[in-house]
Amino acid sequence: MVIGHECAGIIEETGSEVKDLVPGDRVALEPGISCWRCDLCKEGRYNLCPDMKFFGLPPFHGSLARQIVHPAYLCFKLPDNVSLEEGALCEPLSVAVHACRRGNISPETNVLVMGAGPIGLVTLLAARAFGAPRIVNVDVDGNRLSVAKELGADGVVQVSTNMQDIPKEVETICNVMGAKVDVSFDCAGLSKTMSTAQSVTRAGGKVCLVGLGHNEMTVPLTPAAAREVDVIGVFRYKNTWPLCIELLRSGKIDVKPLITHRFGFSQKEIEEAFETSAGGGNAIKVMFNL
Amino acid sequence: MVIGHECAGIIEETGSEVKDLVPGDRVALEPGISCWRCDLCKEGRYNLCPDMKFFGLPPFHGSLARQIVHPAYLCFKLPDNVSLEEGALCEPLSVAVHACRRGNISPETNVLVMGAGPIGLVTLLAARAFGAPRIVNVDVDGNRLSVAKELGADGVVQVSTNMQDIPKEVETICNVMGAKVDVSFDCAGLSKTMSTAQSVTRAGGKVCLVGLGHNEMTVPLTPAAAREVDVIGVFRYKNTWPLCIELLRSGKIDVKPLITHRFGFSQKEIEEAFETSAGGGNAIKVMFNL
Amino acid sequence: MVIGHECAGIIEETGSEVKDLVPGDRVALEPGISCWRCDLCKEGRYNLCPDMKFFGLPPFHGSLARQIVHPAYLCFKLPDNVSLEEGALCEPLSVAVHACRRGNISPETNVLVMGAGPIGLVTLLAARAFGAPRIVNVDVDGNRLSVAKELGADGVVQVSTNMQDIPKEVETICNVMGAKVDVSFDCAGLSKTMSTAQSVTRAGGKVCLVGLGHNEMTVPLTPAAAREVDVIGVFRYKNTWPLCIELLRSGKIDVKPLITHRFGFSQKEIEEAFETSAGGGNAIKVMFNL
Amino acid sequence: MVIGHECAGIIEETGSEVKDLVPGDRVALEPGISCWRCDLCKEGRYNLCPDMKFFGLPPFHGSLARQIVHPAYLCFKLPDNVSLEEGALCEPLSVAVHACRRGNISPETNVLVMGAGPIGLVTLLAARAFGAPRIVNVDVDGNRLSVAKELGADGVVQVSTNMQDIPKEVETICNVMGAKVDVSFDCAGLSKTMSTAQSVTRAGGKVCLVGLGHNEMTVPLTPAAAREVDVIGVFRYKNTWPLCIELLRSGKIDVKPLITHRFGFSQKEIEEAFETSAGGGNAIKVMFNL
Repeated sequence: MVIGHECAGIIEETGSEVKDLVPGDRVALEPGISCWRCDLCKEGRYNLCPDMKFFGLPPFHGSLARQIVHPAYLCFKLPDNVSLEEGALCEPLSVAVHACRRGNISPETNVLVMGAGPIGLVTLLAARAFGAPRIVNVDVDGNRLSVAKELGADGVVQVSTNMQDIPKEVETICNVMGAKVDVSFDCAGLSKTMSTAQSVTRAGGKVCLVGLGHNEMTVPLTPAAAREVDVIGVFRYKNTWPLCIELLRSGKIDVKPLITHRFGFSQKEIEEAFETSAGGGNAIKVMFNL
Repeated sequence: MVIGHECAGIIEETGSEVKDLVPGDRVALEPGISCWRCDLCKEGRYNLCPDMKFFGLPPFHGSLARQIVHPAYLCFKLPDNVSLEEGALCEPLSVAVHACRRGNISPETNVLVMGAGPIGLVTLLAARAFGAPRIVNVDVDGNRLSVAKELGADGVVQVSTNMQDIPKEVETICNVMGAKVDVSFDCAGLSKTMSTAQSVTRAGGKVCLVGLGHNEMTVPLTPAAAREVDVIGVFRYKNTWPLCIELLRSGKIDVKPLITHRFGFSQKEIEEAFETSAGGGNAIKVMFNL
Repeated sequence: MVIGHECAGIIEETGSEVKDLVPGDRVALEPGISCWRCDLCKEGRYNLCPDMKFFGLPPFHGSLARQIVHPAYLCFKLPDNVSLEEGALCEPLSVAVHACRRGNISPETNVLVMGAGPIGLVTLLAARAFGAPRIVNVDVDGNRLSVAKELGADGVVQVSTNMQDIPKEVETICNVMGAKVDVSFDCAGLSKTMSTAQSVTRAGGKVCLVGLGHNEMTVPLTPAAAREVDVIGVFRYKNTWPLCIELLRSGKIDVKPLITHRFGFSQKEIEEAFETSAGGGNAIKVMFNL
Repeated sequence: MVIGHECAGIIEETGSEVKDLVPGDRVALEPGISCWRCDLCKEGRYNLCPDMKFFGLPPFHGSLARQIVHPAYLCFKLPDNVSLEEGALCEPLSVAVHACRRGNISPETNVLVMGAGPIGLVTLLAARAFGAPRIVNVDVDGNRLSVAKELGADGVVQVSTNMQDIPKEVETICNVMGAKVDVSFDCAGLSKTMSTAQSVTRAGGKVCLVGLGHNEMTVPLTPAAAREVDVIGVFRYKNTWPLCIELLRSGKIDVKPLITHRFGFSQKEIEEAFETSAGGGNAIKVMFNL
């Protein structure tokens, strides 16, 4: 199986009915092909289509390849000032954009982001683009939090992995936010991150579950529900590529700092790339260039 | 402390600025007085007001009394064909109505109700009034399920308290529903009921957490989020009395079968009433009449 | 050009990939084939697709034919207790159902329907199924209003075509409604019907424009806007067939009284049918049976 | 009658129950006192309260005075870097913010603003703060359009007052926008501006009616409805002061360029101020300082 679902490339050939693309066009690819026949597709939630054919999800090959056949309507032209690398990052950015839509982020939403890994960081960037006035990132890793700060977080909080620390960490988060937390994004998806998010979010707010960490969580769901703090699921994305490309084009979002490593496409470099990515060092996004 | 927050009564006296009520009017009382100054009150979510003065919530006395002073705008006149007892039941019915609004129940929403206690039963009644085409109640108690059936449940499923049984119970629920579960109401609020609800609800559906059982729950939040099954908190109610009264007046909802016991207001009868209510027999709603 | 877009029929033959239909199945047909590639399709508003191929809209032939080729996913199986005639009426009923969704009709929505022609009548039926507690129909024609009354309107108001009469007619409508008008459906689409609807609808309510009468209207848009009475456009329908069929199956809606005339499919009968339909007598729906 | 409803000032004295304000505090005043008892107040739409007591609306005096008594919860403290003049402009800015909320403006909404008077200009500023990627202002007056351009409009279109010119002006607007118009704000409220807005807005978009010009309008409501272009009423504002103050504090919005003239509070200067304001010259906002 070929893996990979974050990619961009250059059109080599188009089908006879394709009108809007020509060979040579630089495009970013949305990786999932949904059925357009089921109820979820028809009501506009195609990301939940049960018959989705998705890059790298068996039995469908992924995008870590020199050539791919893909429907034209899922290939989005890149403007001149958006590179192929940035195009590839439309995929993780799409997760963040979809999360911001689900969380209804606006200039009146103070945002907490649990996690400062790749998804936490793009969520920070997207929430800023959606107008969030204050954004605080939380992580166990000080280096990641430094990156969050550089990317524009208004505040960062370093936490432990110990459930017992939640009460005092909640207090610290409140202090650093200096305002109510309207919406939290849990980009880790662990019992502790979700518990913290549910505790710290204001009555009537939302916790968006973005990261898929623990399968089962032990969380204070009832006290959260008693303040009508909803838990909003976030799965992939829909209709996000045009917005992501526009945000990159206009400079409202800059994803380039997320690219920490680049590799070619030889066997040796590929192995090295995966080691780098898994190494847990300072790698955020590792990019292959053909 | 006087307890009690489900009540109706007869106006004895009104303040000088009260125009719409006169002594002798029969009214149902909404028990919470919110501040109308905080952000939540001003944006229409007064049920979440942090300064709520609520019957029976210290330091505020409850309604189990012969006379109460209460703001006129929280006293709702009962039509001739709605009794004081039915008026008192506007309170639990309000929880159900608010839950149906939060769950956006309509003629295209198949509904699962976890629990067939008083709140589970009013949720069944309210979901029907909101048009739900199929409603299934789940409980551990066969007697309660019989009542649910009599009150109009399209199907009932008796379950165990054993977490291991969830997969097969999910299958049974699906079979009894005979269709997708669009919205679940967890009227128990236990790890098992919530886990079942999250597992059985369709992608893109909602689980409304109504019952406040366990404080902390161990639940499959991540797989639910990955199908964008949201968890919607439901706390009390807002703006529900007029609708409840209209539903009772028009006969769309009949709460009278919920009243299983009636008592007077002597010391002896009061004790007996509480024993009956706590006894776990076939008591659903136990009513005091002055 | 063949016209016609309200139809049901029996499957004669299916394509090789069709799994859910077999020859002999009785089905109702949704008449529009949208592109599933444009922004509107992808965000779940496929009724607005600019590339819609619709029965009877040039250059696409309509359904007044003995045989039609149509995508399987737009053919909806009818239960045994729903006739082909009722199946054909899913089309106008879909307009009403879509209107009720757009108007967010629920058990707390008092509804005014301007017009008691076919669309006004199905809107009445749909609003009832969505739980509307009070529904009033308005028309210039007393016979039509009698039908509305028989179909369950809580009140009817006969009006003139004279703009000068609006103020007093608004007063009459308020009296007949006996409550605030939360949502109005303008099923005529004339300056007068829209003006009346905008004037009579409560602050914060909605006027749904369903009927496409006058192209240009002279209406009191500003005073309506100053009470935040929104004008909601309603165009065709989306995702309505399964709900319509369920409403017919369950008996929540009975469209059979709308069928006033039946004709065979000979040249002579066809001409007679169109004369009947255009005749303006008591014809509501005129049905062809092969 | 004293008129005026855009004001800010310094607290002189507070009631005994006021906790959050002390003499000397600089505050901006929200001018309307709603009843908090009616359905509209209770459901969070207090701007539509029928019992609103509003500055300068008979029989209530306005704010063009040296001293005013006003409820504490409608007095919002200004940060050090927001002047009293900017505080007074929270009122018109609130109209724009409420309009942007009603129009659901976000980073994916291209915005057309009909009008470049004071309300058109604050709408431009607010739409930008809500993330609108492209904003085009339309007006008959070239000077006003120059101001719009200086304040950040991506494009401007000068139009006539002639209805016949709509088709070609629609074409020009489309060209200047260079993209679909998702939401239009009609800040004039005339037959022509509304007709233009309805024609140019994309299928599924919204026209928000902000300016209250003509009482009755002749508009192409039906073709707009057939593309589900909704007309959204916008009346005053609710819960906007904290957001406006934050937008001013953070510098996301700068209203200072709107203040074109300043006057003292002598009889002579007052007369001069009103002449300036009515003069139609280059006056945008005329400010009184005590």
